[in-house]
Amino acid sequence: MPKDSLKKFNNLKRETRGMINIDPLQAGGILTNEARQALVEWGDGFSVCDFCQGKLDEIKNPPIYDFVHQILPEFINADAVCLTNGAREGKFMIMNAIAKYGDFIIIDKNSHYTTYVAAERAGLKIKIVENSGYPEFKIDANKYEEAIKEIQKEKGNIALLLLTYPDGNYGNLADAKKLAEIAKKYNIPFLLNTAYAIGRMPVNMEELGVDFVIASGHKSMASSGPIGFIGMKKEWENILMKKSRYFPKKEIEALGCTARGTVIMTLMASFSKVSERIKQWPEQVEKARWFSEEMEKLGLKQLGEKPHNHDLMFFESKKLFEISEKEKRGRYFLYQELKKNNIWGIKPGLTKNFKLSTFAVSKEELKKILKTFEDILKLGTVPFLKN
Amino acid sequence: MPKDSLKKFNNLKRETRGMINIDPLQAGGILTNEARQALVEWGDGFSVCDFCQGKLDEIKNPPIYDFVHQILPEFINADAVCLTNGAREGKFMIMNAIAKYGDFIIIDKNSHYTTYVAAERAGLKIKIVENSGYPEFKIDANKYEEAIKEIQKEKGNIALLLLTYPDGNYGNLADAKKLAEIAKKYNIPFLLNTAYAIGRMPVNMEELGVDFVIASGHKSMASSGPIGFIGMKKEWENILMKKSRYFPKKEIEALGCTARGTVIMTLMASFSKVSERIKQWPEQVEKARWFSEEMEKLGLKQLGEKPHNHDLMFFESKKLFEISEKEKRGRYFLYQELKKNNIWGIKPGLTKNFKLSTFAVSKEELKKILKTFEDILKLGTVPFLKN
Repeated sequence: MPKDSLKKFNNLKRETRGMINIDPLQAGGILTNEARQALVEWGDGFSVCDFCQGKLDEIKNPPIYDFVHQILPEFINADAVCLTNGAREGKFMIMNAIAKYGDFIIIDKNSHYTTYVAAERAGLKIKIVENSGYPEFKIDANKYEEAIKEIQKEKGNIALLLLTYPDGNYGNLADAKKLAEIAKKYNIPFLLNTAYAIGRMPVNMEELGVDFVIASGHKSMASSGPIGFIGMKKEWENILMKKSRYFPKKEIEALGCTARGTVIMTLMASFSKVSERIKQWPEQVEKARWFSEEMEKLGLKQLGEKPHNHDLMFFESKKLFEISEKEKRGRYFLYQELKKNNIWGIKPGLTKNFKLSTFAVSKEELKKILKTFEDILKLGTVPFLKN
Repeated sequence: MPKDSLKKFNNLKRETRGMINIDPLQAGGILTNEARQALVEWGDGFSVCDFCQGKLDEIKNPPIYDFVHQILPEFINADAVCLTNGAREGKFMIMNAIAKYGDFIIIDKNSHYTTYVAAERAGLKIKIVENSGYPEFKIDANKYEEAIKEIQKEKGNIALLLLTYPDGNYGNLADAKKLAEIAKKYNIPFLLNTAYAIGRMPVNMEELGVDFVIASGHKSMASSGPIGFIGMKKEWENILMKKSRYFPKKEIEALGCTARGTVIMTLMASFSKVSERIKQWPEQVEKARWFSEEMEKLGLKQLGEKPHNHDLMFFESKKLFEISEKEKRGRYFLYQELKKNNIWGIKPGLTKNFKLSTFAVSKEELKKILKTFEDILKLGTVPFLKN
């Protein structure tokens, strides 16, 4: 292997650093300064294991035990919390622990792709609850009851209900409480996917009445990844945390330990700021709604729930699409124009439909974004399009 | 949640920083400067996904695609490589993909605990090949053949052979080539656990003749964790990388993407140095053997293969144990004396049996360690033990 060919893997710089970031996937995972310090301090492989006595979540120095078993459960009002390698790994862990091969899982049409994939990996049959379609794409909790009845009629066993809260396309927050009542009525466990919620907005498991939540550190808790956690009701603790027959301290579903690296340290380091920022959730929602209205004034259309209840929003713009058809740069013109204005987060090539998040940006920055969209839309009005 | 109670999670310092590190778990995972820079540059959650088109290992900017599909396969002479969240997750991925519930896996007695736990999670029956016992604890590849015959006699289906290379207790390197021949003879897939090998010493899949290897970034490749990878022969690619029925680009066993964070960037950033350091393996083995001999001169006994072939070594010391029985500090005296001399890595409380690694330390530092052991052993000769 010629040494020179390896040089390109050294000293790689992130192109998008310092840009105004409206990528929904990234907006909640931007590190705090505290997390950035933790990265360097605890970056070495297995450094968190210095004083481990056999179980990651029981480490007292650094205080992982307190964080996992006191702070996080209190934060979301869970009976118990366990760390995972991320939200998707949390979903699979729950499915694999509580369901049998061939069981049904009922999921919402707006589910993240990893919900499908986790269910396939666990050998589950997937029943989909459709959304209301264009333009709001809402999930009606009552439709889960219809799905339950259909499956039960054909003698299928339903292992789990799953709702995405909010979903990652439209940012819709369906009625989780209502679905929790249905889940109780039929005695089926209920998992709420809160990868875009916990760390951005208040989530209270007890109040929602769910059996499980899954959270993502790198998506919404200002942490480096991959890391996440599961919040659960206590009746699930022994099932999810089942120990090995050979090593009585080691949990089977966690394969012993999950997020055994600097990622648990960034999650902890950012936590005091994360627990503060969720208190600003009403202002975040107000900011999102204001931005949506301003975008609509420019002729774009916000899909999903309206008025909107989350920073993640989906926009439709026929006009931008029309421009892309005439533009020399084709469908990449929007991405390029935004980049020129130091705005990052709308996927290269998208014009007609795209999502964004207002979470990590100030109102001043949003005003700049609106002005940029206004200017870009004018490209459609000049006869000779610029390059 | 009172804000003050969260302060303890900020600005946590690693107590052991800057110490001479002989912890086998940590010696191979100490970051290079390049990796430390990558940590900060790519620390934000999902930062590596800036230019993702739907699959982590296909990202061209940063050059993850080249790294995973060209550099790593060439490095270990594999037909294909896929990223994982770590070695244990790699083991489970393979077991879950190729075995059926109730199948047998044959493993060596020296297996890491996660081998057992991964097999339990995958619903496999575990057949253990015993080691030779005290003092060498060697694994004889021929004993796998006996185990195969026993299981086949009772009509069991054997899904996988697994050998730990080297094991994490004694640092023994069993005859993997021989076992590969047996695996071929019986047409059973063979997985080599190289978490303590790849990144420390040369590993050539083709030469060894194995179907799979699993590697650990944070254990042996100077990377932050959790991250690892699987190397495989091409006949396994379609089975391990099976795609979702719903999302044709997404791999079921990887749940779409695995090490989706700064960890892949630290693995890449350290790689040029890692690929250089494995060339020093003969010197590493020489250093380990010399250290072993010097320790034996002091009255300690190295267990495991002798002469030794790896930096990970297990020592037995009846004398240190005897001192611990008389010492005021009890069994913690060894740990404390080493710490006083800036030496880190022997677990607090151990005296009679402990493991260590010579990998990350120079001969000069090893001399200091030997001198410290010499001084500590003298504690046993003074009538009034110091505190």
